[in-house]
Amino acid sequence: MARAKFSVIHAPERPEQSLRLDPALAERWLTAFLYDEIVKRRGMHCAIVGVSGGVDSAVVAYLCAKALGPASVVGVRLPYRTSSEESLRHGARVIRETGIRDLVIDISAAVDGYLQYEPDASPRRRGNVMARTRMNVLFDQSAKFGGLPVGTGNKSERLLGYFTWHADDSPPINPIGDLFKTQVWQLARHLGVPREIVEKPATADLIRGQTDEDDLGITYERADRILQQLLTGYSVDDIVAQGFREEDVRLVSGRVNSTHWKRHLPTSAVVSTTAINEFYLRPVDY
Amino acid sequence: MARAKFSVIHAPERPEQSLRLDPALAERWLTAFLYDEIVKRRGMHCAIVGVSGGVDSAVVAYLCAKALGPASVVGVRLPYRTSSEESLRHGARVIRETGIRDLVIDISAAVDGYLQYEPDASPRRRGNVMARTRMNVLFDQSAKFGGLPVGTGNKSERLLGYFTWHADDSPPINPIGDLFKTQVWQLARHLGVPREIVEKPATADLIRGQTDEDDLGITYERADRILQQLLTGYSVDDIVAQGFREEDVRLVSGRVNSTHWKRHLPTSAVVSTTAINEFYLRPVDY
Repeated sequence: MARAKFSVIHAPERPEQSLRLDPALAERWLTAFLYDEIVKRRGMHCAIVGVSGGVDSAVVAYLCAKALGPASVVGVRLPYRTSSEESLRHGARVIRETGIRDLVIDISAAVDGYLQYEPDASPRRRGNVMARTRMNVLFDQSAKFGGLPVGTGNKSERLLGYFTWHADDSPPINPIGDLFKTQVWQLARHLGVPREIVEKPATADLIRGQTDEDDLGITYERADRILQQLLTGYSVDDIVAQGFREEDVRLVSGRVNSTHWKRHLPTSAVVSTTAINEFYLRPVDY
Repeated sequence: MARAKFSVIHAPERPEQSLRLDPALAERWLTAFLYDEIVKRRGMHCAIVGVSGGVDSAVVAYLCAKALGPASVVGVRLPYRTSSEESLRHGARVIRETGIRDLVIDISAAVDGYLQYEPDASPRRRGNVMARTRMNVLFDQSAKFGGLPVGTGNKSERLLGYFTWHADDSPPINPIGDLFKTQVWQLARHLGVPREIVEKPATADLIRGQTDEDDLGITYERADRILQQLLTGYSVDDIVAQGFREEDVRLVSGRVNSTHWKRHLPTSAVVSTTAINEFYLRPVDY
């Protein structure tokens, strides 16, 4: 795989500190962001959050409840028949503690309605079908409630490409898309997300027993520090020289470099001087 | 709705001519685009096209067959139980005449597996659920075949926002995304797409009897000429002064201005100096 070489463009004295969050400030800014984007910019009054039982969607549910009031937030749990009971229970706890509206829609019939034709599909394929089915339901429920679906993807998984394209990344707004996973944990503790949810191993819960860190081959603690160095301009060699394991740095760098397409719009063949998003670049205007 | 005022930045003597396509050149460039994007850039050898029976996906199927050879293209028909028989038959004809591989997957069980919980969903909601289910299947079939899904959205519907977000617009590459509908028709005739497909009224076939032009309230012939004027910098008043009906110009301009969000990536709250696609802008690197 081609690997870009970047020079050091910024060298804070103790760059590892920059992963520390000011959680009270983050809470204020992110609730303001949600209010601005949903109410002021779009004139809507309702947020729809897929509540998986994990910490990312828990943080988003807490933020939405604070931004709009719990009665204006719908927490949708979308279990598949193999989803863990614990995830469903943790989701219920988030909904109960925030006081948001509770909705459960079982996606098994929708998923199996297609996968019946693909009995040999790999766990990865099955997981992607589930994630995209959840997206489909979330958007439809938003249409039903006249609300806006709110995204729950964090910066670590977005950079590592550890998400299903056109699924987790699809809601129009996302309050935590610029927070690394370790920063989501910091914010979760500040917001009072129950410890059992913050402290359990992160998992997409698409395959039983699967955890993110096993899947990725690195802990979020280490991955986030390496990502932070890569994003501030350090090369792989620079980061290794700082004391990180070369294997870890190459793993993280490789994932970032091979998943740029997941963070971009699709590519259209340009045939004119007015191609959308090429020449025709205009501000978002509601 | 806020409406931007743009000054005239470009005034060709006979701007209506610019919708005329050189179809032989378009064919050469768009087949080269497909070969470059699929084979050279990604090292893949197979394209997956959802063949609806309409002219857009017919053109894409013909282009893919020419670019990769018909044996390397899978034409997937994705009927729902209310889809028209004619659409299915037209899709079959495209597959037969191009010689691409033929696959039919009925999405009824998948769609109804969810919609059983939403018996009162409006036709619009049902149509969006179908479109996103088709996207889900198309991506999964691409994973199965080790191929790339190819988009079929044209420039007119992209600009008018006349598509389901994260559905029709989701495949990673699209050869006709910069062609107006009236240009797709020109290219279709050149490629030898059967006349019955080129000449029938355009329809998303999500609701029985629905046509695009009825839905939009304007013909593509008129909409495309107005879109072309808007994109080259003319204001609504300028275009009306050229002899277009004000009602038509306001309709088209209103649709473009209210759907910018559908042509952009979702918005993440920025909390750092390394936010993805804000500060962290790097070239796509495979």
